[in-house]
Amino acid sequence: MATSAEPSVPHATTVFTGPLHQVESYLLDNQSVIESWFRNQWRLTQAPFYASVDIRNAGFKIAPVDTNLFPAGFNNLNPTFESLCIQAVQLAVERAQGNADRILIIPENHTRNRFYLESLATLRQIMEKAGFETRLGSLLPDLHEPLVIELDSGRPICLEPLLREGDRVRVADFVPDLIVLNNDLSAGRPVILENLAQPVIPGLGMGWSSRLKSVHFTQYQQVAQEFAQLIGMDPWLIDPMFRNCGEVDFLKREGSECLSINIEALLKAIQKKYDEYQVTSKPFVMVKADAGTYGMSVMTVHSPDEVTELNRKQRTRMATTKEGKKVTKVIIQEGVYTHETWGEQDMVAEPVIYMIDHHVVGGFYRVHAKRATNENLNAPGMHFERLAFADCCISPEKELPPAAHPNRFYIYGVIARLALLAAAREMVSTGQLFNRLSDTT
Amino acid sequence: MATSAEPSVPHATTVFTGPLHQVESYLLDNQSVIESWFRNQWRLTQAPFYASVDIRNAGFKIAPVDTNLFPAGFNNLNPTFESLCIQAVQLAVERAQGNADRILIIPENHTRNRFYLESLATLRQIMEKAGFETRLGSLLPDLHEPLVIELDSGRPICLEPLLREGDRVRVADFVPDLIVLNNDLSAGRPVILENLAQPVIPGLGMGWSSRLKSVHFTQYQQVAQEFAQLIGMDPWLIDPMFRNCGEVDFLKREGSECLSINIEALLKAIQKKYDEYQVTSKPFVMVKADAGTYGMSVMTVHSPDEVTELNRKQRTRMATTKEGKKVTKVIIQEGVYTHETWGEQDMVAEPVIYMIDHHVVGGFYRVHAKRATNENLNAPGMHFERLAFADCCISPEKELPPAAHPNRFYIYGVIARLALLAAAREMVSTGQLFNRLSDTT
Repeated sequence: MATSAEPSVPHATTVFTGPLHQVESYLLDNQSVIESWFRNQWRLTQAPFYASVDIRNAGFKIAPVDTNLFPAGFNNLNPTFESLCIQAVQLAVERAQGNADRILIIPENHTRNRFYLESLATLRQIMEKAGFETRLGSLLPDLHEPLVIELDSGRPICLEPLLREGDRVRVADFVPDLIVLNNDLSAGRPVILENLAQPVIPGLGMGWSSRLKSVHFTQYQQVAQEFAQLIGMDPWLIDPMFRNCGEVDFLKREGSECLSINIEALLKAIQKKYDEYQVTSKPFVMVKADAGTYGMSVMTVHSPDEVTELNRKQRTRMATTKEGKKVTKVIIQEGVYTHETWGEQDMVAEPVIYMIDHHVVGGFYRVHAKRATNENLNAPGMHFERLAFADCCISPEKELPPAAHPNRFYIYGVIARLALLAAAREMVSTGQLFNRLSDTT
Repeated sequence: MATSAEPSVPHATTVFTGPLHQVESYLLDNQSVIESWFRNQWRLTQAPFYASVDIRNAGFKIAPVDTNLFPAGFNNLNPTFESLCIQAVQLAVERAQGNADRILIIPENHTRNRFYLESLATLRQIMEKAGFETRLGSLLPDLHEPLVIELDSGRPICLEPLLREGDRVRVADFVPDLIVLNNDLSAGRPVILENLAQPVIPGLGMGWSSRLKSVHFTQYQQVAQEFAQLIGMDPWLIDPMFRNCGEVDFLKREGSECLSINIEALLKAIQKKYDEYQVTSKPFVMVKADAGTYGMSVMTVHSPDEVTELNRKQRTRMATTKEGKKVTKVIIQEGVYTHETWGEQDMVAEPVIYMIDHHVVGGFYRVHAKRATNENLNAPGMHFERLAFADCCISPEKELPPAAHPNRFYIYGVIARLALLAAAREMVSTGQLFNRLSDTT
């Protein structure tokens, strides 16, 4: 892809008090140690095929708040760094399935979500440019013919009905060597993909039908502790605290006591850390479906009372997630303020980092005008602008201050890789790692 | 690094007759097959740590004319794609020495070549950003203290005296895990680097004290034949023919008969191919030192008589190469016209492609005003401008015509990788491959 004019970068505001850029300094000063540690970690644990990580930067604290193992949004990345994605895909496929030539992507069933389809077209394009024949096999139940959709970018995209014969799937006469899931399986594990001779990555067990945010953040907590010990910092500076409730029924108002107790305990714990770091902002927590995705069933809470005072509409919204799945398990996560703003209207900007295998390949900001700094920008019906990162996240400049763009992006890349490592360990702990073939010899 | 305004790209002129863009079309139409083939080749043969390849594009023919396993010129690459270099170095080191944290670069002894030192500073910077502690261990015989040189780019560079203790080398108290040669060993194999416990890449045997261009191009011929058969094209379209003479003494005028006979035979063979493809240009050959480098001892020859009619100055120039080494072995290579020109003065532009492990990471053009299209641009005392590639060489655009920039650069990346594969096989055939450790598991 051609280079483009340099995009602007959001401002790091200083409305929140606390030790600014302390995290950045810790991380930048220890770059060699950190990279060495990561190299060792990836030797111990194979990274997921790809991932995107939502990050919140509160100035005094930088932490991941969501790790998506079936990322969309590839169309929002800076085209300047497409080559980085191409190179990383070549490596990721080589590691996953040494002799794969033909790849089948299993997309989401959102045929009317133009943003998603643009991302899918970009993902397919990256794989094609990486030298793999790539086609799209759809799980849409009523698709019997190839469906061609013309996108706003002018690219046509072709969804083909997924067929199974014995222990192999195909589309038309195209029998893939490797199947890449870009569907988070919120609707459950599709029978057509079970027990295939072809490798499926990420594994079916990494879909939201099996995965729990609380399992991920338990792994992340462990990763953050090891990492913080390595460079001598307080793990809280990169780790959002959380608690979870196992049995909640928002509609029947069951389990709200568990929620209240945990919210209160978590708010107190946050306040204690805020006091320690002289942060004067008001603590808040995010209440989310433990198996949720897409920012559904998410609410911002400042006091335990807010949960008991939910009206019918709010309870209904919390009660179901994507694909109409009922929410019973809930995670209560420390809210992390957003410290970056964009444009003259000081719109809130939140970074999303993309990785392929263990390589950071870029990111973008979600920029939203009307939301507050403590609200979730990835929520249904929300409107946000996408602002591609000006930098690639892997090129820190030691001569520049910690908050300079290349350094800020590098830090985001470090935090995102910590979340990626947590996801990698999650895969191992849940037995979801496909058999990795030996590498090139 | 930040993005920059889009650089311009040389024009592909049409002054030479012949089947234009036929090579490009063959290669673009077969992208998936080609990439699959390369993947398989890299599984069979480990690529060198890094390389640069000089390419000539005659329109009807695109071929490598020199493969450098100790590349300089990293400072001439487009900073936009620095991230691609960083990612590739991470992989190359991982493949070469899985648990390396500290790297020592052994540079050339050119302390007054500003261009070389800028390249060295860029190479070191790439490795540092890739997360490796990197220092420079100099072979300069009279260096006893660290030598700091301030470069025009404002970067200081520090050359430290290389020390040996037992079977390990170090600089000061820095004991490297891996030694990367950026010195082509024209002066011979340094004793201080023999039989080390630390891996040295590329191997000492790949220096010009051991290597012969004729061995490389014999390997390339084989690679080009396999590749051409794969996609059904004439290998000549990507392969420069050559012959060699084993015993030539330019000063004593010995061996000139061998030269004349081979030049005549090669010119006839080229004319035959020109006739076959209706190319009306005049055939020419390049006479080069078989163990030469740096464009020394190179001459353009259109007729066998030119060699016998050399004057004393020309003979002296041909007789010695870098480090004053005497030329005895000579390679006579088919000359490939340069088809690309740059700027209003139609300056000749010749591409150089860079690779790290088997990943193409960019390139630049040597642009020279006063040379003809059949002369060697990489010659002593020559002046050329460096024009960074606008594209990354790994992102072909199938919707665009074969000669569009991204496609032209992709083609160069394919040709360069063919030369890289020849070098990889050369390493195996000469037993120079260091013991590769097993990859991450």
